[in-house]
Amino acid sequence: MSVKPRPRGKLVAIGGAEDKSAKAAILGRVLKLSNSETPVVGVITTASSIPDEVYPAYEEAFDALGAGEVLDVRIRERRDADDPKMVEMIRRCDVLFISGGDQMRLTSIFGASKSLEAIRSIYHEGAVIAGTSAGAACQSTTMVYGGSAIDSLRKGAVKMSAGFGLIEGVIIDTHFLERGRFSRLMEVGATNPEYLGIGLGEDAAVLFEGGIIKAFGPGHVILVDSSRITSCNVFDLSDGEAVSVHNVVMHALVEGDGYNLADRQVLSAKQLGAESLELKDAYT
Amino acid sequence: MSVKPRPRGKLVAIGGAEDKSAKAAILGRVLKLSNSETPVVGVITTASSIPDEVYPAYEEAFDALGAGEVLDVRIRERRDADDPKMVEMIRRCDVLFISGGDQMRLTSIFGASKSLEAIRSIYHEGAVIAGTSAGAACQSTTMVYGGSAIDSLRKGAVKMSAGFGLIEGVIIDTHFLERGRFSRLMEVGATNPEYLGIGLGEDAAVLFEGGIIKAFGPGHVILVDSSRITSCNVFDLSDGEAVSVHNVVMHALVEGDGYNLADRQVLSAKQLGAESLELKDAYT
Repeated sequence: MSVKPRPRGKLVAIGGAEDKSAKAAILGRVLKLSNSETPVVGVITTASSIPDEVYPAYEEAFDALGAGEVLDVRIRERRDADDPKMVEMIRRCDVLFISGGDQMRLTSIFGASKSLEAIRSIYHEGAVIAGTSAGAACQSTTMVYGGSAIDSLRKGAVKMSAGFGLIEGVIIDTHFLERGRFSRLMEVGATNPEYLGIGLGEDAAVLFEGGIIKAFGPGHVILVDSSRITSCNVFDLSDGEAVSVHNVVMHALVEGDGYNLADRQVLSAKQLGAESLELKDAYT
Repeated sequence: MSVKPRPRGKLVAIGGAEDKSAKAAILGRVLKLSNSETPVVGVITTASSIPDEVYPAYEEAFDALGAGEVLDVRIRERRDADDPKMVEMIRRCDVLFISGGDQMRLTSIFGASKSLEAIRSIYHEGAVIAGTSAGAACQSTTMVYGGSAIDSLRKGAVKMSAGFGLIEGVIIDTHFLERGRFSRLMEVGATNPEYLGIGLGEDAAVLFEGGIIKAFGPGHVILVDSSRITSCNVFDLSDGEAVSVHNVVMHALVEGDGYNLADRQVLSAKQLGAESLELKDAYT
């Protein structure tokens, strides 16, 4: 959209239900992306209504995967999000991981807080910010927070709000294949074709780095590109009426595939070339 | 949110139903902001379903107010938005005016088009971009496009989507006092307190310039600042349930008042000081 200094950090969005075992493909790579032997990993469970169950599972997983230290960044209400102790914890992180739950908990509790400022600032300085499910959906400027999977291609069916703004020009949806959410991102694209829909399957992830998306993990990543839609009736409808939209382009990416956000081109593992090799180094 | 080169142009959002007579306070000022004696003014009526009525009214108004030339940038479908003639017309404009209607027509037709690229680029190079009603609502990164005025403080009642992204960190609503839309921006703020709600009354406007908002015109501008909300239940609700939100701060601005977006402080005409004088020069 305009020239903006690119964050030096790395952003990872995960589709939910990622493997947390010792073989965890995605979580293991998230740690490796930090380029630290013993990264400090902070876990934010604000999105979840059961943090006492969620946190220990991640603590164990990250410990097993080689974290130097795992921090429980326990933010439950708005006042916690301005607590200097929480801000200090976030600032220490090489990797900050945002758990699943409800993305509106994240935006409503973190919006305009010192903790959110700290997240942005470590991201710009070089940290890895990763999130799964709600923790992925919240990353974009405008986010999806609801909408029936059965038929969201009806005006007003998809619920959107303002997200954390860590990545521009995309809208991220999760549990995408498992819950059949294709129609949600088709409606989103109809309302504004400029936004690339990123539908993350479970145990699938994307890395955003330097204007390129890279898919990884065992699952699928579906891209919904509405930039070339030729016509659409969404503005002629009342709420609940069926949306027509022509010429939506979709891509199903798997591990090793990439995508150039600027020119909207899929990049095969081969085309990613040197960059891909570089990634492999970081991963293994 | 991050360091971004500030556009050299000026952005004006108008609440709708602005005076179009020879005394038109707001439209007259919009032309003056161009610092051109005889500005070229382009009018985009894409949001409207009756462009043949809307365009001539603005043509007459801008002619009477001293435009050097008024251009009918007639974009009705997505293919028009990529038409080089339209792009060329937009690039000639000192002032680009976006009429009212339905903001979803604007985003759905302009999204990912060459015309939208041209609008962004003239804005960054120094042009005045102004819009009324739908033409104002579309300016932010996340926009409101619907929601009952009677009671929008219910989860999911406010309809949001991705806008043109000309201004970050705010969400603009229009016809605000006339249609009693306070509850819409209160719900928006509850979902993400980081976003300042700007509720524009009819025949009221704001100028965005250098991180400052300046109110002008005969009507009111209501600011809804949710950044200090202490608690909110929106994430605990199902769709349609009543949202609670505590400590929302509102300001009613009139002509001459300002607001600093970074520190969320109202600036009186006096506090605007030299800047205010400068504005007056530009206005008269």
